[in-house]
Amino acid sequence: MFTSYGTNEVMEQAVSSLALDRALPEPLNRQLYRQIKAAIVSGTMPAHLRLPATRQLADMLDVGRNTVVAAYEQLTMEGYLITRKGGGTRVAPAADQFLPGDVGLETVDMSGQDNAVRLSRAGEALTRVQRRDEEQVLPMQPCMPDPRLFPSDLWARCLRRAGRQITGRRGGYEYYQGLPRLKSAIMRHLVEFRGLRAGDDQLLVLSSAQAALDLVARMLVDPGDEAWIEEPGYHGMRASLFGVGARIVPVPVDEEGVSIKRQAGDPRLIYVTPSHQYPTGVFMGLERRTELLNRAAQTGAFIIEDDYDSEFHYRGRPIASLQGLDQNGSVIYMGTFAKTMLPALRVAYLVVPRGLVEAFSRALRNTGQVPSLYIQDALADFIEDGHYRAHVRQMRQIYEQRRDVMAKLLLDTCGAYLNIVVPDGGMQLVAWLRDQTMDDVSLAMQFRALGFDGVPLSPSYTTAPRRQGLLLGFASSPEQEIQRASRALLKLLQERASTEYAAIG
Amino acid sequence: MFTSYGTNEVMEQAVSSLALDRALPEPLNRQLYRQIKAAIVSGTMPAHLRLPATRQLADMLDVGRNTVVAAYEQLTMEGYLITRKGGGTRVAPAADQFLPGDVGLETVDMSGQDNAVRLSRAGEALTRVQRRDEEQVLPMQPCMPDPRLFPSDLWARCLRRAGRQITGRRGGYEYYQGLPRLKSAIMRHLVEFRGLRAGDDQLLVLSSAQAALDLVARMLVDPGDEAWIEEPGYHGMRASLFGVGARIVPVPVDEEGVSIKRQAGDPRLIYVTPSHQYPTGVFMGLERRTELLNRAAQTGAFIIEDDYDSEFHYRGRPIASLQGLDQNGSVIYMGTFAKTMLPALRVAYLVVPRGLVEAFSRALRNTGQVPSLYIQDALADFIEDGHYRAHVRQMRQIYEQRRDVMAKLLLDTCGAYLNIVVPDGGMQLVAWLRDQTMDDVSLAMQFRALGFDGVPLSPSYTTAPRRQGLLLGFASSPEQEIQRASRALLKLLQERASTEYAAIG
Repeated sequence: MFTSYGTNEVMEQAVSSLALDRALPEPLNRQLYRQIKAAIVSGTMPAHLRLPATRQLADMLDVGRNTVVAAYEQLTMEGYLITRKGGGTRVAPAADQFLPGDVGLETVDMSGQDNAVRLSRAGEALTRVQRRDEEQVLPMQPCMPDPRLFPSDLWARCLRRAGRQITGRRGGYEYYQGLPRLKSAIMRHLVEFRGLRAGDDQLLVLSSAQAALDLVARMLVDPGDEAWIEEPGYHGMRASLFGVGARIVPVPVDEEGVSIKRQAGDPRLIYVTPSHQYPTGVFMGLERRTELLNRAAQTGAFIIEDDYDSEFHYRGRPIASLQGLDQNGSVIYMGTFAKTMLPALRVAYLVVPRGLVEAFSRALRNTGQVPSLYIQDALADFIEDGHYRAHVRQMRQIYEQRRDVMAKLLLDTCGAYLNIVVPDGGMQLVAWLRDQTMDDVSLAMQFRALGFDGVPLSPSYTTAPRRQGLLLGFASSPEQEIQRASRALLKLLQERASTEYAAIG
Repeated sequence: MFTSYGTNEVMEQAVSSLALDRALPEPLNRQLYRQIKAAIVSGTMPAHLRLPATRQLADMLDVGRNTVVAAYEQLTMEGYLITRKGGGTRVAPAADQFLPGDVGLETVDMSGQDNAVRLSRAGEALTRVQRRDEEQVLPMQPCMPDPRLFPSDLWARCLRRAGRQITGRRGGYEYYQGLPRLKSAIMRHLVEFRGLRAGDDQLLVLSSAQAALDLVARMLVDPGDEAWIEEPGYHGMRASLFGVGARIVPVPVDEEGVSIKRQAGDPRLIYVTPSHQYPTGVFMGLERRTELLNRAAQTGAFIIEDDYDSEFHYRGRPIASLQGLDQNGSVIYMGTFAKTMLPALRVAYLVVPRGLVEAFSRALRNTGQVPSLYIQDALADFIEDGHYRAHVRQMRQIYEQRRDVMAKLLLDTCGAYLNIVVPDGGMQLVAWLRDQTMDDVSLAMQFRALGFDGVPLSPSYTTAPRRQGLLLGFASSPEQEIQRASRALLKLLQERASTEYAAIG
């Protein structure tokens, strides 16, 4: 359900920002099309917003009605707008699912908006990125395990046991940094499989990876401080950095990960996904890792190592973490159970350098971003009883098969339109559009309207050039779903490729 | 476990701030005693910090060794310091449990400290209030239900069912504002029992009351904005307001609650506990409520109504909420399951005015302060199956009896020293010290050292005069525990009252 605030004002403001220029060579309908699309992608025109009728907008802009009709039609065809007979024209419900696109790259402009309700500057900043909120898992959804393969019975048993275990004098306000038993279990796993070097006391349990990013950003980054992110990169980190008013600096990713060698500046925080870059899937080599660690040691920057899906590595053993290489206490390691178990679990963790333990622990108590002790207790049992390791091992085999199936199916069906990159690990693959003039956002919206999911890649860039493509999940879908989705995708790509489609431009 | 950062620097800094003045009439040992105590209470000298040896400190301050010995002895007797043979003198482990005492009332000074690690200004602010983190529930612990009375078997069954229910295509990133089923169940309850007027969409489920306060403060308060709190009042709200750099204005509480009539200023946020003021237990009458709502409507301020334990009301039906009286969308209602179920559950909720729904929902997704869907699912079952209502009803009866037992026992044993206020509701009572020159912080520390719990009241004031007393919980303890605790408390009070005790001063 969407409850908009100040909808009329939002609409008036958005419309008033449309400025057509007859002096330009670009046709007016094309200008209008581009500007409305930009307003939708940037969130200025949010989902469900009702647009003025064509005649009304034509009057407001002092252009012919056909100009508006042409722009609306193109946007409707591309899925940005929905037109119902008698119901007027609205921004499509799914249009808010792929932000941020053109959200700012420099210091966030935190000046207040003209909404009915005045938010704080931090409040405005925290709402800038509108995130996906799925009602259910869709075929090809990336970054998503298959909930149908989750051992619900075993997990339910652990939950019941936890329900009975927390009795007597337990059940109060204890363990705000995490249940000690769970912390030990996680740390043992991380030391053995990810090569971490840290004590249990350095591990903090939080209610989600997003809560962890939010905490790190708040604790370390002042407004205007420089924060480096990968380009393209993870929108969740951008959301948190927006929230604290960081000056976001995108650093390009190539085949070996992010390259900071020639990057000047004085970052306070560097966010990386070295095991399996999000979204490209690239693995960061040792040289790049060393560069990063040296830079951090020299400048006093902290590195966030987001190790979100490193458990799923299909070629050899997963490479050890950056944290394990760190000699200077620069690396903040982050992991989650959303991929190896289920997102619904809502348990993630940070491993912080010893110098940050006390400050982060206190802050965690004051921000209250902590999961239920019942979930922590059940998860500790699940790990200690060996179910976790067994489940991950089993999923690794299945996801690897699914990766191969999907890569082959996509190549067979959509190979003419998509450049498929098969990753060594993870739960999703990158499919770049061969025709880079195609628009991945509207493609993803159409794909979703058919009941499938793919994340458009252009919004994961903060700046041009943005490569167009889709991030498609193989872990969440069995073969027949992948088949259906591939066929549907092919049809969409074929429609787009036909000359008829490009009515404008 | 305590991992201090920059301990040596902290100690040096703290010691260097000690300044004895021979020109003053106050003896030097008394000056030293007061200053060290202030440093401990304000957190400048954190728990476990090792102090210089007496001879060393005497040299540093250029005073006789006996001056230091006398101050250390008094502080040790009062429980602020611990001296071990050969182990030197340290700040007591429990000394960090009763902050904040003298934390600033005006705009927080967010200038960086000289720590080994540089935090952001917000990070410094977020760590200013150090909260209690109990390992287990102690006799007389206030604001605490009795975990031994919690129906663990029923709850365990709900957890197991939830574990089995979340299957198929569920289990992903859905419902970041809360599980719809749980939201409906909570809202039905609030409408029926608390007289709320709001739709399910206005309710947001969070992982703790502290997370809710943190979110509200971030979303609405800019640094330097005025925020009104009750005096005395809840330290959790202060922690959140510190975190956003608010200008905190304490508004005195009298027998009818907080009185804003003569309070000038332009608050952005007003925090109140109208059903049962924390910590005094006072109920806010209709006139005061109307004043509050009118002021908020006039100034555009938001009111947080923290309704933390209103389910436990022992005289007649609980009075309806402030939210239900609000005509202007000014009230943000907050509730928690920590008191009616258990804190370990870690589920709380906000009911926000419609104009804030969209902004808060987006922000919640970006701050990730959300409880596990398993807990939410189990809780929805627990409520829908009638267990919640039955449990609350049963606890209400038991807690009322315990209130009466405790009031009588305390009066019988400690009546000469304590002025007991018997509240109409809640889970704790206020016991003011008849001798207001007695120090409630050190009293509470001694009480805790014996295995009992009481929260000193003077730190819930942000400014002098601070009344000395203890907040003692009756809900968490059966009669024999209350008996033991009362006897122990009597002994401490008698020791303090003896002339011998006041060795200095």
